[in-house]
Amino acid sequence: MTSIGVGLIGTGYMGKCHALAWNAVKPVFGEGPRPRLVHLAEVSPELAARRAEEFGFERSTSDWRELVADPEVEVVSVTTPNAFHAEMAIAALEAGKHVWCEKPMAVTLGDAERMAAVARASGKVTALGYNYIQNPVIRHIRRLLEEGAIGEVNHVRFEMDEDFMADPEALFYWKSEASSGFGALDDFGVHPLSLMQFLFGGVRRVMAQLAMPYADRPSRDGGRRKVETYDIASVLLELRNGASGVMALDRSAWGRKGRIAMQVFGSKGTIAYDQERMNEFQLFTASDRASEQGFRTILTAPVHAPYERFIPAPGHGLGFNELKIIECHELLKAIGGEAAQIVGFEQGLEIERAVHAMAQSHREQKWVGV
Amino acid sequence: MTSIGVGLIGTGYMGKCHALAWNAVKPVFGEGPRPRLVHLAEVSPELAARRAEEFGFERSTSDWRELVADPEVEVVSVTTPNAFHAEMAIAALEAGKHVWCEKPMAVTLGDAERMAAVARASGKVTALGYNYIQNPVIRHIRRLLEEGAIGEVNHVRFEMDEDFMADPEALFYWKSEASSGFGALDDFGVHPLSLMQFLFGGVRRVMAQLAMPYADRPSRDGGRRKVETYDIASVLLELRNGASGVMALDRSAWGRKGRIAMQVFGSKGTIAYDQERMNEFQLFTASDRASEQGFRTILTAPVHAPYERFIPAPGHGLGFNELKIIECHELLKAIGGEAAQIVGFEQGLEIERAVHAMAQSHREQKWVGV
Amino acid sequence: MTSIGVGLIGTGYMGKCHALAWNAVKPVFGEGPRPRLVHLAEVSPELAARRAEEFGFERSTSDWRELVADPEVEVVSVTTPNAFHAEMAIAALEAGKHVWCEKPMAVTLGDAERMAAVARASGKVTALGYNYIQNPVIRHIRRLLEEGAIGEVNHVRFEMDEDFMADPEALFYWKSEASSGFGALDDFGVHPLSLMQFLFGGVRRVMAQLAMPYADRPSRDGGRRKVETYDIASVLLELRNGASGVMALDRSAWGRKGRIAMQVFGSKGTIAYDQERMNEFQLFTASDRASEQGFRTILTAPVHAPYERFIPAPGHGLGFNELKIIECHELLKAIGGEAAQIVGFEQGLEIERAVHAMAQSHREQKWVGV
Amino acid sequence: MTSIGVGLIGTGYMGKCHALAWNAVKPVFGEGPRPRLVHLAEVSPELAARRAEEFGFERSTSDWRELVADPEVEVVSVTTPNAFHAEMAIAALEAGKHVWCEKPMAVTLGDAERMAAVARASGKVTALGYNYIQNPVIRHIRRLLEEGAIGEVNHVRFEMDEDFMADPEALFYWKSEASSGFGALDDFGVHPLSLMQFLFGGVRRVMAQLAMPYADRPSRDGGRRKVETYDIASVLLELRNGASGVMALDRSAWGRKGRIAMQVFGSKGTIAYDQERMNEFQLFTASDRASEQGFRTILTAPVHAPYERFIPAPGHGLGFNELKIIECHELLKAIGGEAAQIVGFEQGLEIERAVHAMAQSHREQKWVGV
Repeated sequence: MTSIGVGLIGTGYMGKCHALAWNAVKPVFGEGPRPRLVHLAEVSPELAARRAEEFGFERSTSDWRELVADPEVEVVSVTTPNAFHAEMAIAALEAGKHVWCEKPMAVTLGDAERMAAVARASGKVTALGYNYIQNPVIRHIRRLLEEGAIGEVNHVRFEMDEDFMADPEALFYWKSEASSGFGALDDFGVHPLSLMQFLFGGVRRVMAQLAMPYADRPSRDGGRRKVETYDIASVLLELRNGASGVMALDRSAWGRKGRIAMQVFGSKGTIAYDQERMNEFQLFTASDRASEQGFRTILTAPVHAPYERFIPAPGHGLGFNELKIIECHELLKAIGGEAAQIVGFEQGLEIERAVHAMAQSHREQKWVGV
Repeated sequence: MTSIGVGLIGTGYMGKCHALAWNAVKPVFGEGPRPRLVHLAEVSPELAARRAEEFGFERSTSDWRELVADPEVEVVSVTTPNAFHAEMAIAALEAGKHVWCEKPMAVTLGDAERMAAVARASGKVTALGYNYIQNPVIRHIRRLLEEGAIGEVNHVRFEMDEDFMADPEALFYWKSEASSGFGALDDFGVHPLSLMQFLFGGVRRVMAQLAMPYADRPSRDGGRRKVETYDIASVLLELRNGASGVMALDRSAWGRKGRIAMQVFGSKGTIAYDQERMNEFQLFTASDRASEQGFRTILTAPVHAPYERFIPAPGHGLGFNELKIIECHELLKAIGGEAAQIVGFEQGLEIERAVHAMAQSHREQKWVGV
Repeated sequence: MTSIGVGLIGTGYMGKCHALAWNAVKPVFGEGPRPRLVHLAEVSPELAARRAEEFGFERSTSDWRELVADPEVEVVSVTTPNAFHAEMAIAALEAGKHVWCEKPMAVTLGDAERMAAVARASGKVTALGYNYIQNPVIRHIRRLLEEGAIGEVNHVRFEMDEDFMADPEALFYWKSEASSGFGALDDFGVHPLSLMQFLFGGVRRVMAQLAMPYADRPSRDGGRRKVETYDIASVLLELRNGASGVMALDRSAWGRKGRIAMQVFGSKGTIAYDQERMNEFQLFTASDRASEQGFRTILTAPVHAPYERFIPAPGHGLGFNELKIIECHELLKAIGGEAAQIVGFEQGLEIERAVHAMAQSHREQKWVGV
Repeated sequence: MTSIGVGLIGTGYMGKCHALAWNAVKPVFGEGPRPRLVHLAEVSPELAARRAEEFGFERSTSDWRELVADPEVEVVSVTTPNAFHAEMAIAALEAGKHVWCEKPMAVTLGDAERMAAVARASGKVTALGYNYIQNPVIRHIRRLLEEGAIGEVNHVRFEMDEDFMADPEALFYWKSEASSGFGALDDFGVHPLSLMQFLFGGVRRVMAQLAMPYADRPSRDGGRRKVETYDIASVLLELRNGASGVMALDRSAWGRKGRIAMQVFGSKGTIAYDQERMNEFQLFTASDRASEQGFRTILTAPVHAPYERFIPAPGHGLGFNELKIIECHELLKAIGGEAAQIVGFEQGLEIERAVHAMAQSHREQKWVGV
C-alpha cells in the first residue's frame, strides 16, 4: 500500500486538526502510505469547497453520504458534532471504510453500543480521537509503569479543568441543555478515562457527585434560563488493578485552560503530569539518596518515542496538534496490520460505560460497578 | 496583665514547637504579656530537667499533675501523644488554667465531646494547634474570599500528602494499629478540615472511601503483620455554603513531604495554594484583560498581616515554626479578652465530627451528614 | 499567485523542519499560495530520492545547482551546514529565486556581507531561520512592550543553554574546531540576538568573555585533542535604546535542553520567558493592588495571534516545529508583497556583526561598538 | 560557659532579627551557653526602653558607648546603619567584646580594613551578618560540591534582585546619594559574593557595568533630583578556581522581592537555587538514566543539617529569620572555640575588596583583579 484515500467529514476544530494530521503524517514519519486527500464534506457547498482548497482535498461535497460512497475514499475522518457520530461512522463502516471518529463516541450509550457492534462486524479499523494517550510523555509513563519504576500503583488522582463555562453571565447555549449529555462528565471525563484505560486497564466501580456552579444563565430573550447540565463532577473510583482513585472535572474552573493533571502513586515512587505543560512530567523515585530525593522535571526528548520523528534535539517541545499526527500514524499502522496504540470502538465503548456508570451513581447516590 | 505563667507538658516535635513560640511571641509581636516559662513536664525527670534548661523553664517535673496544680501556671500547653490529650486538658481546665492543646483533640469522639463540655463550663480559653490557619497567606485568602475577589465559591479541592508511611518494607508500628484511629483520616484530615472551617464555615455532608496501599508490613519478630489503618482517604463533600468538593489524603505518597494543596474555584476567579511553598499562593481573576490573564504567584509580604511583625521586607519567607508563634499570639489575645483567630475546643469538636462522619460513610458506603 | 514552486536543499534537522512547514502552511493559515514541492537536493541521489518521497517533492537531485537552475522553483530553502549557506544562497538569488536560509548566515563576516549585498541587488525576498521570534508569546511580548505595559525597558537578561557539549568525555568533533567558529557565541548567540533585534532594535556595544569548560576531549585515535572553541560565553551589553543587559550562553550546561530564558525589566513591570516552556510567559505589572501583586503565568491562547490559526482553544500548546510554519507563512506574505515579520539578510547581517563584535571584545578584553 | 552577656545596638530590621535569634538560639539548638540579654542601645531613651521590654533585655541606653563599656556585656550585636559599623565594632573589640556586625562591613574600604586589623589584633571573635550561607540548602550544596556530585564547576551565574527602588516616581532618598555607596553593588553584591566565597573560595577578577534605570527622581521640594547611585550592576567574573561567571544585580527589578538566584554548572551536573523559594533547590546529575534525566526539586529535610534542630519532619520549611538563629549558633560555637561557619572581618574584607574592584572596573571600563 503506497497511498490511501482519505475522506474528511467536518472542518471545525477537530476537522482542521485531522486535516493537518493527514497532511503531515507522511513527512513526519517517513514511512507508511501517503495519504491522498480525496473528498471533504461540509454543510454548505461553498464552505466545503473553500476548506478543500485550503486543506488540499481533491473534491468536496455538502452531502456526506456522497463522500462515504466515494470508491476512492478508504478511510473516513468523522469530526462532526457528537450527535452525528453514530450515523456517519456506521454508514462509513458499512460502506467498507476504516473510520477515525472524534470522541466522545456518541451521545447515548445505545448509539455507542451499535457503533461497536457494527465495527466488530465490519472487520475494519476504527479509532477514536483520544489523542492525549499519544503524547510521548504518556507513552513513556506507560513504559515506566510497566517496568515497575514506581513499583505497584496504589492510588491515582486525575483532574481535568477548563474555563469556557466559567463566566456565569455568558449566554445559555447548547452545552447547558440536557440533550447534550451530563455536562463535564461526558465532555471531559472521557479524556482522563482514556488515560486510565491506557495506563491501568480502566475502572471497576465509581461513585460520583455532579454539581452546577450556576443554577441559571442569561438567555437570548433577555431573561434567564435554568441550567440542565453539570459543569462539575467529582468521582471516587477503583481501578481494575484495585487501586483507589479520585477524578475531578470542572469546565467552569477559572484560569484552567487545558489542565489534565494526573498523579500516580506507587510503592516505589510517584509520577505527576499536567497537560498544560505537555512536554514534561514529574518523577519521584524512592531509590534516590535520601538527601537528594525530589521530583525530577523530565523534558521530552528523542529518547521518548516518537518525539524523535519530529525533532532530533531534546526539550524543544511538541504541540497539541502533533499528538493528532501521532494518532494518525497509529491508525495507519493498524490499517496496515501492525500493532498500534489506538482506542478502537470496542475500547471506546468501555469508556462510555464508565461515564454512564458515573451518571447513574450520581442519580442513585451510591457506588456503581462498570 | 504584664506576664503570664506557662506550663508545658510534652517536649517532642510539638512540645519544642510550643516552647519556641513561648520564647518568641513577645519579641516578635512586641505587645501582650511576657510569657514566664514556669513549669515543664516530661516522662522522665532527667529529660524534664534537661528540656527545662534548654527551653528556659524555671522548674520541671515527671508528674504532669504537679504542673497542673502549680498556682503560678496560668496556661498549659498539652503536646503529648493524642491518647493523653483529653485527660490532661480536662484536668488543666478544671484546675482553672487556659489550655493550648495539640491536634487532633482526642482519639474518640466521646473524649472530644467531654473536652468541649468541660471547656464550655470552665469559662477558660482553649486553643487547638491548627497552625496552618495562622499562615499570613491563608489569612489573606480569607480576606480575599470575604471581599469577593473570586466571587462566589462553587467548588473546592483539598489534598494532604506526606510519605512517612510510603515504604512498604518499613516496620509495622503503632500508626498501623486500629487503636491509633482510622489512619490518614484523623492523622491528616483534620488539617484540611480546619482550613475548610476557617475559610468556608465547614462541611455539611461527606462520602468517603478509605484504602490501604499495603495489606501487611514487616513486624519486629521477622514475620509480617496485617495493617489495620487506612493510609489513603478519598472524600467527596459538600461545604456548608453548598459548594461541592473533593478531599484526598495520603500518608504513603512518595515524594510529598508537607503537601497541603488547596484549589478554590469561584464565579470570578480561582485561588490555589500548597503548603510545601507556604510563602506564596496563586490567584486568577477573570477581570484581567483577556490577553494577559493568568495565575499570579503572590509572595507573602508585610501587607499580609502579621508577616510584618517578623520581617519588614517582602518575599523573604516565614517558616513552619513561625505559624505557631502567630497561633501563640492569638491565644494570648483571646486570654486578654480580644477577638482572636483560634480553633477552640467547641470548633475543634466540629472538625472531629466531620472526621467521624467520613469514617462512618466509608463503613456504610453512603453519604453521611455532619 | 495561487501556487509557488519550492526547492529544498538539505534534509537534516532543519531540512525536515522546512519540509514540514511547506506541507502545513496552507492548511494551517488557509490563505496565500499553495506551495508546490518541486525539487529536493541531498548529497546522495538515493537519500535525495527517499526524502523526496517522504516529504512529497516531485523530483530530486544530488546536485543542488540543478535545483537552483530549475525554472519551476521560485523559492529555495537552504538548510545545509553553515559553511555552504553563502554559496547556495547567492547562487539562488542570482538565479532569481527567493531564499529562505537557516541561521547563522555564514561562518565569516565577509560571506554574510556578500550575502546581504547580493540580496539587496537581487530585489528578491530573503529570510533567515530565526524562528523563535515567530512564537505567539514573543510576538505578544512585543505588542506589550509597544503599548508600554511594563513602561520603559531599562535592563534585560538573556540566557541560552543546552547540554549537547556537556559531557567532557564525549569525542572531539567539528564543533570543537576553530574552523567552525567561536563556539557558543555563533552557535547560540544569534538566537538571543534575534530576539533583542525583534524586541528592542538590537545592541549598541558589547563586552564579552569566552570560556572553555574542558581544555581537551578524547579523540578518535585514543588520545586527547585540544579544544579550540568556547562552549561558554558571558556578555555585558547595551541595547540601542540605552538599556543595560547581560547575555550568558552555555552549550555545556547539564540539564538545559532548549533553554532560552529572557528577563525584561521596565519602569512599570517585568516580563520573563523561557523557551523550554514556550507556551507561557510571566508578566508582573506594578499597577496591580499591592497585596495581590505577583508574576502572572500567561498561557498562549487564540487571543495571541497567530495561535488561533492552529488551535481555537486556549492553553493547548504549540510545538517548536509550528514556529517554522509561522515563519514560512511570513515568508510567503513577504513574497506576496505584504508586511511580514522576517529577518532578512540585511537584518541578519546586523546580528552577525554583533557576534563578531563580541569575539573581538573577548580578544581585546574591552568594550566594542557594534 | 553556661551563659553569655549580650548587648544589642540598633533595633531596626536587623536589630529585631538579632534579638529574635538571641532569644531562640538556646531552645532551638539545646546546647551552648544561654544568652543573657543584658543591654540594648537605641537613639532615643524611650525607644530603647520600649524595645528592651519587648525583646527581653535587662537594661537600655541611648548612649551606645555605655553599652560597650558594660562589663556584663560579652558580645555586641551591631545593627545600626552602615556608616556606624566601623566606629562601633572597633570600640566594642577594643573594649574586649566579641562582635556580631551586620553587613556590609563599612561604607569605605579604609574603614573595612581598619575593622579587620583591629579584629585581628583583638583576638576576639567577629562575625558578619551573611545569613544566606547558613541556609541548610546552601550548606548542603557545599557538601554536594565537595563530594563532586556535579563534578568540576566550570561556570556560575548569580542574580540578586528586589524592587524597592523600582518605582521611578518614588521620592529621592539617601539610597540614591553617592555618599551611601555605589548602589546595588554594595547594597546587594555582597550577598552573592558571600555565597561565592562560601562555595567556591571567592573571585579573582571582575569586569563590571553599572547602570541607572532612572536619571532623576522627585525630591521633597517638588522638583526632581539627579540620582547618584546605580540600581543595576552587571558583572563578568572569574572565580578563584578559574570558572567563569556572571553576576547581575538590580534593586529596581519590579516583581522580584528577595530573589538571589544561583546556577552552578559542573562537568557532571548542575545545581540551581533561588532564595525566594529558600526551602528547595534543583539538582541535575548526568548519571541518571537518559530517559529520566531532569532537574530534581529537593525540599529541605532533617537530613540537611541543621534543619533537624528546628523541625523533625521534612518539607515543612524554615523562614528567613531562622537563618539568623543558625548564624547566632555558629557565632556561639566560634566563641566557644569550636569550628564554625561564619564570615569574620578578615573574610568580610575580601568581599569588600571584590565590591570595590567592581566599582573600579566600571570606572575604568576594564577587567580588575581582586
